[in-house]
Amino acid sequence: MKVFDVDCELVYAVNGEPADFIFNIQAAHHPDQRILEERLTSEPKYEFEHHVDSGTGMRLARLVARPGELRIRYRALVETRYQRPTGDEEEVPVRLLPLEVIRYLWPSRYCESDSLHRLAMVHFGALPKGYGRVESICQWVRDNVQYAIGTSTPSTSVRDVLVNRAGVCRDFAHLCIALCRALNIPARLVTGYAQYEDPPPDFHAMFEAYLGDRWILFDSTRLSPEEDLIRIATTRDAADAAFATLFGPIKFVSWRPDVYDADSRSQVNG
Amino acid sequence: MKVFDVDCELVYAVNGEPADFIFNIQAAHHPDQRILEERLTSEPKYEFEHHVDSGTGMRLARLVARPGELRIRYRALVETRYQRPTGDEEEVPVRLLPLEVIRYLWPSRYCESDSLHRLAMVHFGALPKGYGRVESICQWVRDNVQYAIGTSTPSTSVRDVLVNRAGVCRDFAHLCIALCRALNIPARLVTGYAQYEDPPPDFHAMFEAYLGDRWILFDSTRLSPEEDLIRIATTRDAADAAFATLFGPIKFVSWRPDVYDADSRSQVNG
Amino acid sequence: MKVFDVDCELVYAVNGEPADFIFNIQAAHHPDQRILEERLTSEPKYEFEHHVDSGTGMRLARLVARPGELRIRYRALVETRYQRPTGDEEEVPVRLLPLEVIRYLWPSRYCESDSLHRLAMVHFGALPKGYGRVESICQWVRDNVQYAIGTSTPSTSVRDVLVNRAGVCRDFAHLCIALCRALNIPARLVTGYAQYEDPPPDFHAMFEAYLGDRWILFDSTRLSPEEDLIRIATTRDAADAAFATLFGPIKFVSWRPDVYDADSRSQVNG
Amino acid sequence: MKVFDVDCELVYAVNGEPADFIFNIQAAHHPDQRILEERLTSEPKYEFEHHVDSGTGMRLARLVARPGELRIRYRALVETRYQRPTGDEEEVPVRLLPLEVIRYLWPSRYCESDSLHRLAMVHFGALPKGYGRVESICQWVRDNVQYAIGTSTPSTSVRDVLVNRAGVCRDFAHLCIALCRALNIPARLVTGYAQYEDPPPDFHAMFEAYLGDRWILFDSTRLSPEEDLIRIATTRDAADAAFATLFGPIKFVSWRPDVYDADSRSQVNG
Repeated sequence: MKVFDVDCELVYAVNGEPADFIFNIQAAHHPDQRILEERLTSEPKYEFEHHVDSGTGMRLARLVARPGELRIRYRALVETRYQRPTGDEEEVPVRLLPLEVIRYLWPSRYCESDSLHRLAMVHFGALPKGYGRVESICQWVRDNVQYAIGTSTPSTSVRDVLVNRAGVCRDFAHLCIALCRALNIPARLVTGYAQYEDPPPDFHAMFEAYLGDRWILFDSTRLSPEEDLIRIATTRDAADAAFATLFGPIKFVSWRPDVYDADSRSQVNG
Repeated sequence: MKVFDVDCELVYAVNGEPADFIFNIQAAHHPDQRILEERLTSEPKYEFEHHVDSGTGMRLARLVARPGELRIRYRALVETRYQRPTGDEEEVPVRLLPLEVIRYLWPSRYCESDSLHRLAMVHFGALPKGYGRVESICQWVRDNVQYAIGTSTPSTSVRDVLVNRAGVCRDFAHLCIALCRALNIPARLVTGYAQYEDPPPDFHAMFEAYLGDRWILFDSTRLSPEEDLIRIATTRDAADAAFATLFGPIKFVSWRPDVYDADSRSQVNG
Repeated sequence: MKVFDVDCELVYAVNGEPADFIFNIQAAHHPDQRILEERLTSEPKYEFEHHVDSGTGMRLARLVARPGELRIRYRALVETRYQRPTGDEEEVPVRLLPLEVIRYLWPSRYCESDSLHRLAMVHFGALPKGYGRVESICQWVRDNVQYAIGTSTPSTSVRDVLVNRAGVCRDFAHLCIALCRALNIPARLVTGYAQYEDPPPDFHAMFEAYLGDRWILFDSTRLSPEEDLIRIATTRDAADAAFATLFGPIKFVSWRPDVYDADSRSQVNG
Repeated sequence: MKVFDVDCELVYAVNGEPADFIFNIQAAHHPDQRILEERLTSEPKYEFEHHVDSGTGMRLARLVARPGELRIRYRALVETRYQRPTGDEEEVPVRLLPLEVIRYLWPSRYCESDSLHRLAMVHFGALPKGYGRVESICQWVRDNVQYAIGTSTPSTSVRDVLVNRAGVCRDFAHLCIALCRALNIPARLVTGYAQYEDPPPDFHAMFEAYLGDRWILFDSTRLSPEEDLIRIATTRDAADAAFATLFGPIKFVSWRPDVYDADSRSQVNG
């Protein structure tokens, strides 16, 4: 069990007319973490409208902002209670999958798993099924895709990554997800806050595969230990997990998604 | 109000070892229709495991089949109660959209709306907002895409259709959906049974746009009146709406998704 | 040295109005083969207009056909004089490449080598340069792409093959070409007649890489020995090598690109 | 007749080991222009190896540079003798096209005309054939694609532009070329120097269509009058027209492709 101190600030310039925002930056209501304290504020002060996704605990917050600068700040103290996998978790045959998990077998915007069956079989078809096979997928992606900021765009999907062989955390996660699905392993994206030094702090993306009777988190980039992720969104892929969606004449100014080990921070602040 | 008699048969050959099937061929539990009678059976006789999607009333049925021929038959008497739009329905600003509708603004596997903003603005940006704008989208798709069986595949997405300018009902629906989403109009796929003569009967696909305070059905192909659709699936796009998903060594043999006007049928059978 | 007897027939139906055809089915004027005899005829009898590409010896024949059935027949007796590589041929640094060979480094319609640099470096960057590296590319393509008729279309490019991992001879050749170019090895497509039993006879496609001081032929499909190819076209890729291009209301009826060992045929015919 | 003063400078940093460059920045040997004076130099001083494409007069210059800074400078005084079209030029039926022009009907890396037949027919199929139809294509591209620097990359092809509806001069030219080819009008890319104020000076791209019995230049961006282009490359598309191709550990530092009206310049310099 660890406690993290999240301090995330987003700044926008709204031009000319009121604009709508949907934020997805709050720690999820999820069994793997407990929110000890949190505060979502805006400057100027606006009222947020909240929505919690019943299936995954993901939280959306909507607001309407008048023209001018908008500062969003999310402060939270979150305790993570990550359940470490044993490595013996087994793949679940389709006939035994909970039917609400089935949707995570289908392809999605950035994970065209429907086109990857042969590729997945060539590389992973002969491996023993289970946790180790998902680890092999992570390893293959790490060996075959270069982590390089600026090599992908918001429209980059797995088809592109397989050709260009470069991307960032979300591309790594998408490729792993698509390969899992192509092998009939349910998989989905998890975004969150993570503490790493290099590259510079950003929202992070990992993925979960359904093994044994539960979802297990994997970070194929190895940028962060899985147990240190403060979860925000759990979705089919990044199409549903944007940390902010902007409607109107808005300019993005800056963002700073900081995370601290809660103890070390208190020292710094003390 | 009309009553339709659905008689759908699917035939498969299962080779060598037991195989898993997920079917999505039952009339949905939806306010626009009432299921008067229904029977889903298999030959040989297997037990189906059922799941109803709480949000949309879509129904999945799973079974495991032993090697050999498998025949699935779905018979239903369904009364449709279609609520005709007035044509005055308005687009809903993002700030007023129910938050559970927001997800139908995001891009999905076959509807890369994230890439279509400029295209949508060029063609539809200057039109008055509301029902008529969605009709204009339907019209544009009809004028610019050729309905031609065999021109698209299960991996064809809107990006392809915009280039190739050919497709079938699902491609038409996907393109309309993507254009709506690019204009911030929530939109989603609806599949179902429809009665038309030419092309030969098949599962049909339409789409719904969120206008006024409800979902309104549109068929940009004009193959079928919207009020005659017996709804099966309501989903982000075809990735979630396959009428059958097969896991294992299975060969598809034939399908026959027939629909009759219930009265005329009784005469035929009488 | 071997002698082959080519007997190729193409049949079309021209509807309504005269139509233009460009054929590319004659044995090339190329140092690796000698045309002992040949006859290109049409039924009805039309005059062909001929063009020989000065760089590669590829030959185009154009005709205008009136409505009705058109039968094209090409008969030729061709002696091949294939120069077997030693396996020691070296890659040529760009500074030493003949400048007219440079064009075969650029990407082309079906060979998006500009996007494959990282992929090529991951798999082949560490291998010793030279003939063996091109052989490794052939082997990798054979191991990673399934030869399967019907899995690709005339618009399938290397980007698609890398994802779908299936294709026919031209797709295999395109992928090898693109990987060579991504490594700065000039490479190009060679089409021709080849004698193989399974799959059924068709125009074949191989590729050449520029190694040592010459172009060396490779068949990554292993369907045919390189020395048995009767060369037709030598081009950047299949975009320039269609065996027939049709302009007008034409229906393709049948084709039969047969090749016989000249001696065995005389016995059959004797 | 006009005289232009070209003054182009390219700067690179070569790291660690000698590197190869191929430049394509010299005014072409072409009937539409006369090179009155020119000088291609490098600093440090290296010898260039020259190649002229016999078909199009395009000129390649190769050099090997040692580690360190490399400055390339091309100065030329070029008289343009543009032959203005009458607007009555007709499309040439395939049966009458010179056979060496046929290659400009085929698809190429960035111009997937093979996929655009339906799109071209929908928009331009009913228009009268000839010069005016190509002008309509230019107009449609101008109306439907936003000129916006930074919206496309070196791998962007016409398929992408049709979806994203944004690009720069080369994307505009590519789309026009592909639409022409889809209508059986031979078309090709022309790059060169052009004098315009906004956006900042860069190598420019236009295209030519084969009409009447000659190639006619069109600039669908309208950034520059066609008669003011100092032609560099004439190629299938940008795949063959890179102003510089770099082989080795090279960093691009800056470029400045200036053009002046020769008279005004002399005043400045006088």
